[in-house]
This record gives sequence, C-alpha cells and structure tokens, in this order.
Amino acid sequence: MAAGPILTLHEIASTVGAQLPQGVDPAIGVSGAATLDQAMSSHISFYEDPRYLRALRATKAGVVLVPSSFEESLSPVVLRVANPAVAFETIFEKFMPAPAHPARGIHPTALVHDTAEIHPTACIRAYAVIEAGVRVGANTTVDVHAFVGRDSQLGDGCWIHPHAVLREGTLAGARVVIHSNAVIGSDGFGFRFSAGAHHRLPHRGYVQLDDDVEVGACTTIDRGRFGRTWIQAGTKIDNLVQIAHNVVIGCHCLIISQTGISGSARLGNYVTLAGQVGVVGHVEVGDRVVVSAKGGVSKDAPAGHQLMGTYGIPAKDARELVAHYRRLPKTVAKIKMLEQELQDLRTLVEKLAAKTPDSLDQGTESDSQR
Amino acid sequence: MAAGPILTLHEIASTVGAQLPQGVDPAIGVSGAATLDQAMSSHISFYEDPRYLRALRATKAGVVLVPSSFEESLSPVVLRVANPAVAFETIFEKFMPAPAHPARGIHPTALVHDTAEIHPTACIRAYAVIEAGVRVGANTTVDVHAFVGRDSQLGDGCWIHPHAVLREGTLAGARVVIHSNAVIGSDGFGFRFSAGAHHRLPHRGYVQLDDDVEVGACTTIDRGRFGRTWIQAGTKIDNLVQIAHNVVIGCHCLIISQTGISGSARLGNYVTLAGQVGVVGHVEVGDRVVVSAKGGVSKDAPAGHQLMGTYGIPAKDARELVAHYRRLPKTVAKIKMLEQELQDLRTLVEKLAAKTPDSLDQGTESDSQR
Amino acid sequence: MAAGPILTLHEIASTVGAQLPQGVDPAIGVSGAATLDQAMSSHISFYEDPRYLRALRATKAGVVLVPSSFEESLSPVVLRVANPAVAFETIFEKFMPAPAHPARGIHPTALVHDTAEIHPTACIRAYAVIEAGVRVGANTTVDVHAFVGRDSQLGDGCWIHPHAVLREGTLAGARVVIHSNAVIGSDGFGFRFSAGAHHRLPHRGYVQLDDDVEVGACTTIDRGRFGRTWIQAGTKIDNLVQIAHNVVIGCHCLIISQTGISGSARLGNYVTLAGQVGVVGHVEVGDRVVVSAKGGVSKDAPAGHQLMGTYGIPAKDARELVAHYRRLPKTVAKIKMLEQELQDLRTLVEKLAAKTPDSLDQGTESDSQR
Repeated sequence: MAAGPILTLHEIASTVGAQLPQGVDPAIGVSGAATLDQAMSSHISFYEDPRYLRALRATKAGVVLVPSSFEESLSPVVLRVANPAVAFETIFEKFMPAPAHPARGIHPTALVHDTAEIHPTACIRAYAVIEAGVRVGANTTVDVHAFVGRDSQLGDGCWIHPHAVLREGTLAGARVVIHSNAVIGSDGFGFRFSAGAHHRLPHRGYVQLDDDVEVGACTTIDRGRFGRTWIQAGTKIDNLVQIAHNVVIGCHCLIISQTGISGSARLGNYVTLAGQVGVVGHVEVGDRVVVSAKGGVSKDAPAGHQLMGTYGIPAKDARELVAHYRRLPKTVAKIKMLEQELQDLRTLVEKLAAKTPDSLDQGTESDSQR
Repeated sequence: MAAGPILTLHEIASTVGAQLPQGVDPAIGVSGAATLDQAMSSHISFYEDPRYLRALRATKAGVVLVPSSFEESLSPVVLRVANPAVAFETIFEKFMPAPAHPARGIHPTALVHDTAEIHPTACIRAYAVIEAGVRVGANTTVDVHAFVGRDSQLGDGCWIHPHAVLREGTLAGARVVIHSNAVIGSDGFGFRFSAGAHHRLPHRGYVQLDDDVEVGACTTIDRGRFGRTWIQAGTKIDNLVQIAHNVVIGCHCLIISQTGISGSARLGNYVTLAGQVGVVGHVEVGDRVVVSAKGGVSKDAPAGHQLMGTYGIPAKDARELVAHYRRLPKTVAKIKMLEQELQDLRTLVEKLAAKTPDSLDQGTESDSQR
Repeated sequence: MAAGPILTLHEIASTVGAQLPQGVDPAIGVSGAATLDQAMSSHISFYEDPRYLRALRATKAGVVLVPSSFEESLSPVVLRVANPAVAFETIFEKFMPAPAHPARGIHPTALVHDTAEIHPTACIRAYAVIEAGVRVGANTTVDVHAFVGRDSQLGDGCWIHPHAVLREGTLAGARVVIHSNAVIGSDGFGFRFSAGAHHRLPHRGYVQLDDDVEVGACTTIDRGRFGRTWIQAGTKIDNLVQIAHNVVIGCHCLIISQTGISGSARLGNYVTLAGQVGVVGHVEVGDRVVVSAKGGVSKDAPAGHQLMGTYGIPAKDARELVAHYRRLPKTVAKIKMLEQELQDLRTLVEKLAAKTPDSLDQGTESDSQR
C-alpha cells in the first residue's frame, strides 16, 4: 500500500471521543489501521469480541481501541470507547478513504439502446450493455460488463456490480445492490411432462427487488411464471443463494449463503435463513422465523419459531433429539442391561416357583402364552 | 407496463373453448392477465392448484379460468376449462407476446474468429466472443457477453444466454439452452499429491450436451479428464448445480438446484435429484431413481428406488427411521419406566424369597454371577 | 476431431517404458487415445482403478495400458507399466497437444488503465478490463471478459479465466488460477441492525491468494471487513464454494464443491472439506482435519480429527451412531418385547405371591410407592 496520512494520537482520541492515558505523548504519529493480527507497531487496531482476547494480547499494534469496561493492562496505548468497531471504522476511513464513486456518464464502450433513459448522474461503465426501454435512476452505477435486459427499471442510488446479469423486465427500487455474477430473472425451472419428455413452461413473469435489497455474488433469482418473484424492502441476500420462480420474501430478511428457496414459497418479515438452508415449494414461513444452518423447511412455519435440522423441528426439541441421538450407544447398552436383569430375575422367580407347591405349572402356562 | 390490447370476453371464451355464463355481456373488455394476487378488476386470472383456493376467494380479478369440475360460486366471471394453466398461458401470450427472437446476424461488437462457421440464421449478440473452429447452427443465439471457446459445436435452435461461458471443445446438440453465468467445460478438480503439494492433473476431455438439454444459471459442468462429461438428451439442470468431470447423466433427468454430482458418477434415465442432493463419485444411479431434497447417494442405487436422507436410505425406511428418531424422548422415558418396574418387581420377589425357605441364598448367588 | 498423428506400437511402448508382448507387430499404428468406454479399435486406453474392470473387459480399444501386476488376459494388446494413468497422460498429449498458451500482448479491445503495469510476456485477451494501479506478472493470462479491479496485483504465471471477476485490491501470488465466473473480493455479508433495518457495514479489506492457489468456477470469496481474507499457498478450491470475509485457510487444503465457510473461521494446513460442508464462523479447524461430505463444523476441531455429519462428530463415533440409528426399529421392538416379558414375569410373581402367606400386602404396598 502507498504511504498515506499520519494521524497523531491527539487527533485520533478526539475523533473517537476517548481520553489519552496519562503520560502518553499526544503527538505520537499513527500511520495506519489494521486488524489485531495484521497491525504493526505504528498502527491502530481495535478489540470488541472476547473471541479475540488472545489476538489482543499478542498484537503488535501501537494503539488499540477497547470497550469502556475493559480493564486488563496491555502494552499498546489503550483508548477506551463505547463502541470500538464503530470508532475503528471512522479512523480506518481516514487512513483509507472509501473508493470514489465511478465518474458520472456513459463510457464510450457501453452499449445503451436509444430508447433507454439514463439519468445524467448515473454511471454506465465499460462494456456494460443496456437494452431497449430500460430506465436507470440518479446516482446509479451499472458497472463493467453488466447486462441490463429490455424494459428493466433501476431506481436511484443502485449499484450493479461487474458482470451482474439482469434479464428483461427486472424492477429494482432505490439503493438496490447486485453483486458480481448474480443472475436476476433467469427462467424458472418449470416443465410439463408429456410423451416421455419434459417441455419448458414459458416463464413470462419478472423479478421485483424493492428498496435497499442486496443480492450476493453468484446468487440466482428466477423470474415468476406469470407474475413476479418479489423480494421486499431491506432484505439482504448472501452469495450463491437460489430463489425460485414466484417466491415472495418479506422485508428485512437475512438469507445466508447457499440457501435454496423453492417455487412459490412465501417468507414473512425479519426471517433469517442461516447458510445452506432449504425451503420446499409453496410453504409459508412466518415473520421472525429463524432456521439454523443446514436446516430444512418442509411445511408452514408459524411466526417467531426457531427451526433446526433437515426436518425443520423447533430448535428446543431438535436439540433434545440430538442429545438423545448422541446417547444412543448408552441407551442401547442400558436396554441390554435391563434384558440381562430381567433374565436374572426370571431365573430367580423360577427357582422360587419350584419351591412353591403348584406354581411351576402356572409358570409353564404363562410361557406358552407368549 | 404500457397500454396493451383489449380482449372481449367473447374473444377469450372462444379462444379457450369455454362457455360464457348466462347473463354476462360478451363485449366486456379485459385488459391484462395476471396471477390471482396481482390481478386487478380488468384482468383475467386462473385457478388450478387447491393451495391457491384462498387466493382465488380474495382475488380482485374480473375473470377467472377454473377447472371444469369447480363448483364454488365466485364474484369474478368464471370460465370453466379442462386445463386452466394452459388456457391462461394462451391468453397471457395475447396480452404480452413472447419477446421476439433477437435479430439474425452478427453484432458489430461481437468477435468471431475467421475460422468459425456461423449459420446465416444464427444471432451473435453484442460483445460475444467466438473462438477458432467453432460451429454455430441455424437459429441459434449466442447472447450478450457470452463466450464460446475454441472448437465448440452448437446445434440448431440453441440459446446461450448472456454471460454464459462455454470453454473449448464443448459439444451441444439441438435446442440446448445455457442460462446466464453457467460455466461449461471448466477443469475438473483432480490433483496428484506429491512432495507435500497438490499438482494439477491435466483435464483434456470435454463436455457433451445432447439435444434439448437445459443448464441453469451459475451451474458448473467440468470437462472430462480424458473423455467426456456427458448430459444426454432432454435432461434439465437447474441453477447452481455442480457436475464434476466424467459424470454421465442419462436422458430426461431433472437435476434440481444446488445439487452436486461427483466425478465419474453415472445416472440412468428419468432420474430426479431434488434440491441440495449430493452424489459421491463413481456410483451408478439406476433409471427413475428419485432422491429427496438434501439427500445423499453414497453407493449404487437400483433402478426405481426412492431415496431419502444423508445416507440415501429407501424412502419408506427413512420415514420410519425419522418417526423413531422423533419419538426418542418417549422411547427413553419408556426405558426408564421399565427399569423402575423391574426394580419394583425385584423388590417384591426378594420379599417373597425371604418368606420361602432357602431361596434367599440362591438369589444372592444369582446376583454374584452378574 | 480432425485427423491427427499416428503412433506405432513401438513408439508407444518405448515412450512409456513397456515391453511389447511376444508376437505383436511393433509397426501397428495407433490413431488416438480415449477412455475405455469411448475408445475405438485403433485407439489406446488405460486401466488402473478396479472399479473399471468391467469397462476394461468390454472395451473396444486396440491397446491398453495396465498396471505391472495385472494378470488377466485380454483381447486388446496389453502394455504393462508402473503407473498407467501417468503413462496414458503422456501418450494422450502426443495425440492432442495441450492448447498453446494464448499469444502474448494486449488485445485491441482490452481496456487497460494507463497506470496499470502489464508485463510484456503477459496476455490480456479480448474485452478484458484492467483498472488503475493493477500489476500483472510475467506469463500471466487475463482471459476474455475478465475484470481486474483497481490496485489488484497478479504474480507470474497466473491464469484468470474468461468472465472471472477480481474486485479491487485483490492480491494473487504466482501461478494462481481463477476459473470462469468466480468472484474474488465481493463485499462480506455484514450488517448492523438498527431502527428495524439492516445497514451495511463497510467491507474495506481485501482477498489475498498465495502461490499456487486455484479457485473453481462460480466460487465466491468475500473481502475482509478491515484486513484480509487469506488463502495460503497450494490450497485448491473447487466450484461453487463460498468463503466469507476474514476467513483464513492454510496451505495445501482441498475445499470441495458447494462447501461454505463462514466469517473469520480459520483452517490449518492440509485440511480437506468434502463437498457441501458447512463451517460456522470464528471456529478453528486444525491441520489435516478431514470433514466428510455434507458435514458441519460448529466448534473448534483439533488437528488430525476426522469429522462426519451435520454436528461434526468424530467419524468413528458418527458411524456408530448411524448404525444405532438404522437399528432403531429393532431397538424399539426389543423394548416392546422386554415390556411384555416383564409383564409376564409380574403375572407369574403375583400368582406366586398369592400362594405365599402375607406377601400380597407387601406387593400392594410396593405398588403404592411408585
């Protein structure tokens, strides 16, 4: 990295609202911001999550931001703040300002159809292709090699990253972010079986992404068969997720990597699907449902439920089942022991019976009924 | 959406072969076709799947297509037909004709090697790159930004969607569809381990896709090591599927999203792998095998079998196992109860023995043998 | 395929160091190399893995390379060698030489920023886009449509395949291979929840790929939040893998298809994650850990452990648990039998007690205590 600015401890402390420890020279210069394990002695770092306590103790950073309540004494200069990660973000930004938004305007190699309406503050980068009837809002970037199909509409402040594909008719609200190699509006996986072969059902609907939706890299969202596949405001979708035709996802959901949602499933608001989850078609998943990693949802899930495991069992029950599962060898050993004890007791009883007049006959009779 | 055509009820009824209900004015105009939940009062919609009965009752559509056997009375005008979805498809098409096939010919920004043979009816769109020795058949579209590597052959009527990558030597039959960002012919994941490191095995084979194969968005199909990775006629592959080197998939299979098939596995015809299935390397999966979502196949699967679960157990057995699994807490409680009952019975027997001359000694002896 | 060279049996045998069987004419010509099932009578093939014995017996190949120890007599001419696959690779290469590296230089349609430094032996192909501050090493290929973002650094001998995306600041060592449609350096999935909505945390770190790393098609590697996401030397990553922000993967690991590794997880060296594995965030996975296909890792895994199943249980225990699981129906039947036997025995004891003076009262008393 090229040489950047130097900040003094005084500047840093006043920026984040921390007090310099007594005896520390406020003119000391700091040349960069880095994570605990990557920081060098002229760098500032931060500590917030107890999982990084070992990294904190081993860091070479010259200065660290720590929570107000942190007590341990450390060799770096310690600055106490309410929220170390946020404070660090502010300082990091000073050392390495966010990349400037690409320049406004249409790159000479971009192909924009005559009927497309591009806002003058939008940025259409090299080799992007924008088809007929498309509208691109203010301050929206269509990045290198991106493709925006016929009649798609992009609101203000969107960012379509390099190589993203928006097939025809995609509707995106404001501040929608589509990461690289995501595919929006591919044909749904629907076929009619006749005469021994699968025949494509036309998928003539579209995908609608409301304000503040984010779609991860290499994620695929299929268009509806007739109507829309609809991702509502504020929902964030991670990388490599599959969303099938006519799915509806409510507001402010988190759909984590490698999850798949089958056709016509409907999710409420504030749903979290942890990684590698599968949701079957046509189910309803209520508001605030949380499904653990690798979980499956195969029937309607009531609002607020926490589900775990392939069969989408309530998390509390699922944990109990797993505990029973892991004790199976002990359970089976216990059964064997009971069997032996029962056998021993039967032997004892039979001996007893032999000494009790008339009883042996009855024992035999009982045996023969089994 | 722009203003489109208006169809009269008379035109619609005669197109789909339905009778207008008595008393309905055949001149009433319909302005669009939409799903039950999206339709407005001037629209036609359709109902077929009982899961949508609630949506039917709540729809604002002015007209609905329903199955002949449907009896319930509804506020929209009802048209009874044998197959509502197919009838709707026909009407939908009138309101929103399928997008015209892109114009024939080679876009000026497409790069086509001198030695490539492009049929005059083919369409090579903007920024597509076609390398040496490629053949493109009649009415085939190579869409925006697509890449077709050296010596690949595309039959008639194929559609290679925007940003699809066909590496060198790919063979595609007629009517093959490759969706956006799919990668055909990447190098297989094969390495030789020596001197503490993995060294790439050259993968010099190719991928062959027979007639009517469809490959989903962001799906990857690796080339064979020496020979081919082979997808036979009519097989449909969904999004985000991984197919490793030298896999052979028979005809008319359905491979659903996020499934992975390891190297040299062989599938028969009419196999269905539901979503997120994993198939290990070198196994044979017989004709008409069905594997449920999230299932695993780790050994040969005989024709016609239905498999479930990570261990690929026959579905009937798997369902029984899951039922037992979910009853584990009850089973364990039952074992505890038996243990207590056995203890109670032993206490009773010991009391009995105490009253029977000589028997206590023998009970003790029995104990000591345990 | 076009007509290629003809090799004589004499040439082949001497190339691979095999002896021609007695009575075979060394001047016989061989016209190609193919797998057992694809070979024709004028071709050479090879056999090494016993799983292909049936294919060997059925092959139409005229010549086969087999292991030295192979005894069975076959109709093709048999050449015995120490390592048939390696020998076959050598012969295959003579029939079908590896594709020539693309020509050096920058294609006229490639867009290379003025401040980028491209080694004169590098190859920048059609429509590739290389941004400001990028460095491309000797003999490195940036293939068709690839995107290399601002300030990225590529070492010598790398191959960035068609349509790969390297976002800004990516560091790649020597001989790094990135397959098509992979995305390196997308923003990590990190948000701060406030006022009922998720707000993006800036991800301002980068991805570092050390020497000899290979990244599969459609694989996504997110940039670190502040520091790096780091893949160390010699690690090979398959297709459709997700690697989240700030993950560290050691040297010479194999990460197989559709695996997902969550944020800040750390893997040691020589780790193998078989297909569709999930690793949760912030865990440490020790050297040489092996996780079976579909396995989950939810806590730290000590070096050398073999883990299986969703809960990442040591493989030996996991196999025992699966065996118990599959015997659950028998276990439950056994419990029912014990229950019946206990009932029978109790009946017998009660009869016995009835014949023993005073004992029935005590039995009743025992009952009432339960």
